[in-house]
Amino acid sequence: MAKKLVVNGMILTFADEQFRWMNGSLAVDNGQIAAIGEKPGDWEGDDVEVIDAKGKLVLPGLINTHGHAAMALLRGYADDLPLHVWLQDKIWPIEARFDAAHVATGTQLAMLEMIRTGTTCFADMYSDEEAVAAKVEEAGMRASLALGVIGLCSDDEAKEKINRSKAFVKTWHKQAQGRVTTMLAPHAPYTCPPDFLMRLVEASHELDVPLHIHVSETAKEVEDHVKHYGKRPVEHLLELGVFDRPTLVAHAVHVNAEEIAIFLQKGAGISHNPGSNLKLGSGIAPVPQMLHEGLHVSLGTDGPASNNNLDMFEEIRLAALIHKGRQMAPLAVPADIALKMGTIYGAECLQLADQVGSLEVGKRADFIMVDAEQAHFYPRHDLISHLVYSASGADVTDVYVNGKALMRNREFLTIDKERVIAEAVRLAEKF
Amino acid sequence: MAKKLVVNGMILTFADEQFRWMNGSLAVDNGQIAAIGEKPGDWEGDDVEVIDAKGKLVLPGLINTHGHAAMALLRGYADDLPLHVWLQDKIWPIEARFDAAHVATGTQLAMLEMIRTGTTCFADMYSDEEAVAAKVEEAGMRASLALGVIGLCSDDEAKEKINRSKAFVKTWHKQAQGRVTTMLAPHAPYTCPPDFLMRLVEASHELDVPLHIHVSETAKEVEDHVKHYGKRPVEHLLELGVFDRPTLVAHAVHVNAEEIAIFLQKGAGISHNPGSNLKLGSGIAPVPQMLHEGLHVSLGTDGPASNNNLDMFEEIRLAALIHKGRQMAPLAVPADIALKMGTIYGAECLQLADQVGSLEVGKRADFIMVDAEQAHFYPRHDLISHLVYSASGADVTDVYVNGKALMRNREFLTIDKERVIAEAVRLAEKF
Repeated sequence: MAKKLVVNGMILTFADEQFRWMNGSLAVDNGQIAAIGEKPGDWEGDDVEVIDAKGKLVLPGLINTHGHAAMALLRGYADDLPLHVWLQDKIWPIEARFDAAHVATGTQLAMLEMIRTGTTCFADMYSDEEAVAAKVEEAGMRASLALGVIGLCSDDEAKEKINRSKAFVKTWHKQAQGRVTTMLAPHAPYTCPPDFLMRLVEASHELDVPLHIHVSETAKEVEDHVKHYGKRPVEHLLELGVFDRPTLVAHAVHVNAEEIAIFLQKGAGISHNPGSNLKLGSGIAPVPQMLHEGLHVSLGTDGPASNNNLDMFEEIRLAALIHKGRQMAPLAVPADIALKMGTIYGAECLQLADQVGSLEVGKRADFIMVDAEQAHFYPRHDLISHLVYSASGADVTDVYVNGKALMRNREFLTIDKERVIAEAVRLAEKF
Repeated sequence: MAKKLVVNGMILTFADEQFRWMNGSLAVDNGQIAAIGEKPGDWEGDDVEVIDAKGKLVLPGLINTHGHAAMALLRGYADDLPLHVWLQDKIWPIEARFDAAHVATGTQLAMLEMIRTGTTCFADMYSDEEAVAAKVEEAGMRASLALGVIGLCSDDEAKEKINRSKAFVKTWHKQAQGRVTTMLAPHAPYTCPPDFLMRLVEASHELDVPLHIHVSETAKEVEDHVKHYGKRPVEHLLELGVFDRPTLVAHAVHVNAEEIAIFLQKGAGISHNPGSNLKLGSGIAPVPQMLHEGLHVSLGTDGPASNNNLDMFEEIRLAALIHKGRQMAPLAVPADIALKMGTIYGAECLQLADQVGSLEVGKRADFIMVDAEQAHFYPRHDLISHLVYSASGADVTDVYVNGKALMRNREFLTIDKERVIAEAVRLAEKF
C-alpha cells in the first residue's frame, strides 16, 4: 500500500541538529515521510495501512559506512591474529577462491544480520560487487556499493579493473528505485600505486561519484608509507587529488592533527570502525579530536570476519565507550553524538543526507522499530542513553526501507533465511 | 521433576582447563549434573523430563562477579560524567533516599535482565542487602551477596554497620538451597579507614567468608591514597591483612606489576569491569599482564547505572576486544580466555568453582541455552569465536539454576516482569 501510518510509537525526530522524541504518528506516502506527529487530515480508510508501534521506539535506520558484507562466509575462520598475517596468510588466499556465487551468498548472510539488527543502509567494497548489487536490489536494502580494486598488477589488469569499476558505476548508480548508489574504491594507498589511484580519481570526476578507500588502518602501514614515499598517506592522497573528490575514508586510526585538518578542509567523510580496529589490534582512532575539530565521523562494522558481527548498536556503543576509557575522559563521545554517528553522520558520509539518516518530512522512509518493553529500557530516565548504552540489535523488531517492510515482528520478508544459511554452510564446508 | 535430560544440543563441556564441544545429552538429577554425552542407561519413562535443545548451544551459566543490582533503578539517570562527580553529585544523593523497597524492586529489575541474557550467578554489594537476598531466593538465581559498608562515620555507626554485616552473613550464608553465599564488603580503601577495615578482616576470619572490595578504580583514587597514606592502596590493604582472607577485588584498573604480584601471591580474585571502566572514563585495567602472570581474572558489569546494561556477553566481548586495541596486540585476550573469564574464572573468584562455572559431572546444573540458528552463528567455523565476537545476551532462550528453569523460550518463570517494571517506573517517577 502506498500510504502507511505508524501509530502509538515514540518517534525519534531530528531538527536543528538535535534528536527529539515525539509521541504521535509517522505518515509514509510512496516511500517518503509525509508527516510526523499529527496524522494528515485526509488519511482515513482502506488505502492507509496502519502499523501499531505500541511499546516501541521508532528510529531512523542505522547506517553502516564501511564493510565487506560477503566476508560473512569467513566469520570465525581466522581470529586473534594481526592484520597483516590475518590478511596475507588467511583471508586473501581463501578469498582468491571466491567467485560471484560466494559473494552473493555471503552478502545475503550479512544482510540477514544487518536487517535483523536495524541497519537499513550500508557501504560495501568488495570483488564481484555486481553480485552484491543484485542481491541488495532483491533484499530491498539501501547501499552505497563499490568494486574494491588493488593496483598491484600489470598495466593491462589495471586497465581492466578500472574499466570494470566504471562499468559497475554506470550500470548500478541510482538504480533499484534509487536505493543503490555507487563509488569507486581503490583499496588503499599501500595496495594502489599513484598512477592507478590517479586514474580512479579521474574516473570519479568523469562519472561524478565519490571515492571509498582504506586509509592508515595500522601503524605499520603508515610507517611503510613514509619509508616508501617520504610522506604520510593522507598528504600523499591529497597530492594525488583524491580529496578533491567526495571521499569516504575507512579507519583513519593512525592520523595526526595535520591529517585531521586535511579531512576537515577537504570535506572527507570518515568511517570509524571501532570493533574491527580493536579486534585486529590496529589501535584506537582519535575520534574525539576529529569530532572536536568538527568532523561528522560515521561508523562502520568492517567485514564480518574482522568484527565478527554486523550489529551497529554495538559500534555505536563502542564509539561511546572506548574513547572515554582510553582518554580517561567520560565526556569524550557523549551518547547523542554516538547515535548521530550511527545515523545522520553516516548519511552525510555516504552523500545521502538529503534522503536518509534522520526522520524528517521529505526524507525517504527508512525506519526501524525497537521493542522497548524490556527490563533494560527501564526506568525511562533517558531513552537516548538506553539506546546507546543498554540496547542491542536484537531489540529491533521491524525494518522499513523506502517505506517497504524488510522485517516485521522479527520475520524476514525479503530474504529466505533458511535457504541462505544452508547455502552458506555448503560453500563454507569446501574451504 | 528431579530428573531432566537435555537432548539434541551442542554442549560446551570443560576438562583439563579447556572447553570442548560435545553432541549429546546433559543429564540432571536433583539439580546436579549427572552425566554428559551418554544418556544414563536407566533414564527412561515418565520421571524424566526431556528438554529439546535442537539448534541450540548448551553453556554454563555466565557469572557476573561485581555489581550493584539495585542501581537498575538509576539506569540512565546520570551519564557521561567522571566517577567522582557522578557518585558525589548524582548517585549518592539519590541513593540516600533509597529504602529496602527500592533495593528489592531495583534488584528484581536487574535480575530480569541478568536472566534474560544468560547470567545465572552474580556478586552483589549494596545497602539493604537483606532485601537483595530475599529477592534472589525468590527468583531462583545464585548469588554471592554482601552488605556494602562505608567507614566514614562515627564509631557507633561503624559498630552498627559491622554488626549488621555479620548478621547478614549469619542469616544468609549458604541459604536458599545453597544458592546464596555471602561476603563482607568494605566499600573501598578511600571510604574505609584502617581501623574499620581491620574489624571487617577480623569478622571475615571469624565467620569464614571472603571479602569484596573496590580497589584502584581511578587514577585519582590511587594518587589521593599515596598522598594520604604514603603508599599505594594494594600495599596498604596487604598490610592491614585484607589479602590474608579470600578477597574479591573489583576493578583494579590502576595497579602496577608489584600490585599484580601481590594479588597472585595472596590468591586474590579480580573482577574486571570493562564496560563500567570505559563509560566512567576510569581507564583500562592491565588485564593481559594479569593473565600473563597467571591470575584468573573474572568479569563484572558493575551497577546498571554505570554500564548501563547487565549483558555478560558484552563484558566478555569487551574483555576480548579492548586490550587488543589498546595494546595493539591482537593476541592480548584470546576468545577462549574471554569466555573462561565469564564462566569458570568467575566461579573461582567467588569461591564457587567446585559447584559452578563449567558443565562437568558433579557440579550444580546451572546452564543456559543459546539459539544458534541465526545468521550471526554461521558459518560454523568456530563456535567459541561466535559466542565471544558475534553473540549477544538476547540469543539466550533458556536459563536453569540448580536444575530449575528460570526462563524458558524467553519467558520468565520466577519473576513477574510486568509487575516489576511497573513498580520500577512508579519508584523512579518520584526521583
